[in-house]
Amino acid sequence: MAAMPDIPEELRRLRASIDNMDDVMIRVLAERFKITQQVGHLKAELGLPPADPAREEEQIARLRRIAADAGLDPDFASEFLAFVVREVIRNHEAIARRDPDGA
Amino acid sequence: MAAMPDIPEELRRLRASIDNMDDVMIRVLAERFKITQQVGHLKAELGLPPADPAREEEQIARLRRIAADAGLDPDFASEFLAFVVREVIRNHEAIARRDPDGA
Repeated sequence: MAAMPDIPEELRRLRASIDNMDDVMIRVLAERFKITQQVGHLKAELGLPPADPAREEEQIARLRRIAADAGLDPDFASEFLAFVVREVIRNHEAIARRDPDGA
Repeated sequence: MAAMPDIPEELRRLRASIDNMDDVMIRVLAERFKITQQVGHLKAELGLPPADPAREEEQIARLRRIAADAGLDPDFASEFLAFVVREVIRNHEAIARRDPDGA
């Protein structure tokens, strides 16, 4: 591994900001998955289907608008939501495997 | 598209929280990409290589620790960083195509 003892101050500063932002996102993601877990349990209780295509369309449209407003590629916002939702589904499947009766 | 006029209050509340968190993440991602763009320009100026494997290893290790602390799967944190970094690289390539001399 190449040593890089002499990181310029400006680069160090920018990296510290990137790290702060990544920390925020990891913490927010942790909370988001807690909430989707509650949603999963609630839907199971109420007998609602796990997927809700109308809701998902709304989410995508909303995030694309916010991305455009914030100067982020809207396609990336769509991909980001799809990435997170894939993990939500993986979590729900893991819960279903551990608790097949939804008890 | 199936209409779902009667969304339970609890589900509506949880979804509003999910939406708030997604808004935060999209806004933070927009800022993060602004900063990585600055990093890209700075590295080009200073003649530093675009990739820095030691830095990337540190980032992964740090985010895995934060994820574990926050109750998030550390593997998901690694995947999240990889997902974001792929977009950073795509952005850098797009900049390079528009501005092949790094001017």
